[in-house]
Amino acid sequence: LVPALRPFASTIFAEMTALATRTSAVNLGQGFPDTDGPAGMLDAVHDAIDNGANQYPPGPGRPELRAAVSEHRKRFGVEYDPDTEVLVTTGATEAIAASVLALTDQGDDVLVLEPYYDSYVAAVAMAGARRRVVALHLDESSGRFELDVAALEAAITDSTRAIIVNSPHNPTGTVFTRAELAALAELCVRHDLIAISDEVYEHLVFDDAEHVPVATLPGMAERTVTISSAGKIFNCTGWKIGWACGNRDLIAAVRAAKQFLTFVSGGPFQPAVAHALRTELDWVGQSRAALGDKRDRLSAGLAEAGFSVLPSSGTYFVCADVRPLGYSDATDLAWALPERVGVAAVPVSVFTENGAGNTHLLRFAFCKRDEVLDTAIERLHRLT
Amino acid sequence: LVPALRPFASTIFAEMTALATRTSAVNLGQGFPDTDGPAGMLDAVHDAIDNGANQYPPGPGRPELRAAVSEHRKRFGVEYDPDTEVLVTTGATEAIAASVLALTDQGDDVLVLEPYYDSYVAAVAMAGARRRVVALHLDESSGRFELDVAALEAAITDSTRAIIVNSPHNPTGTVFTRAELAALAELCVRHDLIAISDEVYEHLVFDDAEHVPVATLPGMAERTVTISSAGKIFNCTGWKIGWACGNRDLIAAVRAAKQFLTFVSGGPFQPAVAHALRTELDWVGQSRAALGDKRDRLSAGLAEAGFSVLPSSGTYFVCADVRPLGYSDATDLAWALPERVGVAAVPVSVFTENGAGNTHLLRFAFCKRDEVLDTAIERLHRLT
Ligand SMILES: CSCCC(=O)C(=O)O
Ligand SMILES: CSCCC(=O)C(=O)O
Repeated sequence: LVPALRPFASTIFAEMTALATRTSAVNLGQGFPDTDGPAGMLDAVHDAIDNGANQYPPGPGRPELRAAVSEHRKRFGVEYDPDTEVLVTTGATEAIAASVLALTDQGDDVLVLEPYYDSYVAAVAMAGARRRVVALHLDESSGRFELDVAALEAAITDSTRAIIVNSPHNPTGTVFTRAELAALAELCVRHDLIAISDEVYEHLVFDDAEHVPVATLPGMAERTVTISSAGKIFNCTGWKIGWACGNRDLIAAVRAAKQFLTFVSGGPFQPAVAHALRTELDWVGQSRAALGDKRDRLSAGLAEAGFSVLPSSGTYFVCADVRPLGYSDATDLAWALPERVGVAAVPVSVFTENGAGNTHLLRFAFCKRDEVLDTAIERLHRLT
Repeated sequence: LVPALRPFASTIFAEMTALATRTSAVNLGQGFPDTDGPAGMLDAVHDAIDNGANQYPPGPGRPELRAAVSEHRKRFGVEYDPDTEVLVTTGATEAIAASVLALTDQGDDVLVLEPYYDSYVAAVAMAGARRRVVALHLDESSGRFELDVAALEAAITDSTRAIIVNSPHNPTGTVFTRAELAALAELCVRHDLIAISDEVYEHLVFDDAEHVPVATLPGMAERTVTISSAGKIFNCTGWKIGWACGNRDLIAAVRAAKQFLTFVSGGPFQPAVAHALRTELDWVGQSRAALGDKRDRLSAGLAEAGFSVLPSSGTYFVCADVRPLGYSDATDLAWALPERVGVAAVPVSVFTENGAGNTHLLRFAFCKRDEVLDTAIERLHRLT
């Protein structure tokens, strides 16, 4: 293994899910739902398989999917030409890897907000670029992770080429405010940075939180690659159908890298996802409402079990402080938890530099059936 | 786009297939079959979709698929532990990209045999390594591309880290002999090189050609990553289910890169491919026989239309010399052909350095229904 990748030998999701499987623990570690997406989408994939969609789709993705993605992005306020500004990818992961490999190089700095999703920094390492990590500020009174604009500005140098943004934010559940993202955008424009914006949880915002697509902010449309994925919108995480949208030059670059990572993927899933984007947004609304209730259910249960629960305004995730339970180290606890009480969660420290940040927090996924959440809560009571 | 990737802005397959679609040409450019794989495999994917296989499969691939791949590799003479020595990938393309990104680095030389499949050299560029291109020798009397062992040896330096091998060989249709591959293996052992062996056409050898898996040669098991894919075995190129096999350390390295390229993919396809590997090898034998006939059909038709046809012992492809038809440049001809006569083919020059090699050859795919081949041949007669 080349030196740059040695810190990334494994992923927390693969490891924690393997541990959960081995110990028959309730898996609230990896973020995936345990119920299927809309029936119409599943019917559509059956049809596609029976009707000759089993060979290579076109390199940039099937035209009907690119058209549906373009229509979908219009709802979020940005227009993209389906032929040149939309690229279908193997989930958000490939979109991120291809964007970073195509757009950043040796000698470039890439800004990453900590805690960060693990693939961001691995992709930066593969590209031979350098990550500059800017920690979010955990406001002790509200429990919200906030964008630290001053720290972000201070981290920018002449070598800074891009920033990887993620709102709604995994793992914290923060949805950045318009003011926060506007400040970030202003820095991008002033310093001529590209924004690689992972918005896979764009539909999963709760209460009165508002998802602000980065590309809608002043000056950002031409410098943002916006990434999303059917997995999180339509409960089909295993299909790995995602997309990257941006201006023609950016998407041509991302496509250049993408075509040599996987060429294409998920042939028969592509028309099914196109169908879902066109016809199943009601299902998405219901799913969001149900997930809001699940967040409440899990948050209440964790509080009852003795955790101090942080607010979550979006994503599949809620974070909880383990210290009130008498534990000083959430990382150790996370690795012991499956065996000890039969629940898997992810330590937030794995998303920080050297595992040194947020060592008191566990991340729990609430995208599970109510009875699964209830079982997990019941088991977590044994911790006290 | 970063400088290293600028030469790879597009792929011949995406471009030529788009041109074929635009001109309604018969597409003998990109290598994909136009009939479905075994019915049992399609039934199995329907079942998987209906039975909860729509979320993330495990990082290294579903256990039943890794077990089936391991069984399948045993038929080819090598044993791999399904848990640590088999990795499911998004087709062979991702296996190649991940292998190169994981195992080769800046300052490393990677040997590539020319003509070469385009993704090999793009992956080398992404890794920041340097390609050393060794041309196969086209024997004028037999029309066979031969391994030039002396040239290969001459290209090896202290910086040489790996060689990308491909037999059966795309685009030429050459199946390297045991003697050729033994000589290559001997060089690998002597110079401590890793072999990244793309054997996707392992089942598609004709007449008395023998597929010799590189990992079966003396000293090679521990230094070879063997890559194959369901797409080419079971006519499901759009599913992009492939795999890499090798010793534990090599596969751990490849997995490290792979998990940040796509994480996983093709959830419901994985059990279906496992089923096919276990139960559909008769279908594969029939498919091979049918493809041998198609090779004969297309080769005869091309000869009748005035081409000088080179022998093909394996793969989906046959190459043909355009000079007897009065053309000096097959590259120009390839780009004109869809419009001119309604047939798409790929110029072999695109698989060579600066497009300068094999400028007299077109590559035609014969993995198509007989009537499609016949239409193409009929149309190609208009060239004279
Ligand atoms: C790609 S596997 C991880 C799923 C996920 O997004 C998460 O759990 O954070
Ligand atoms: C990955 S698209 C190209 C298919 C193929 O292997 C070929 O045509 O050579």
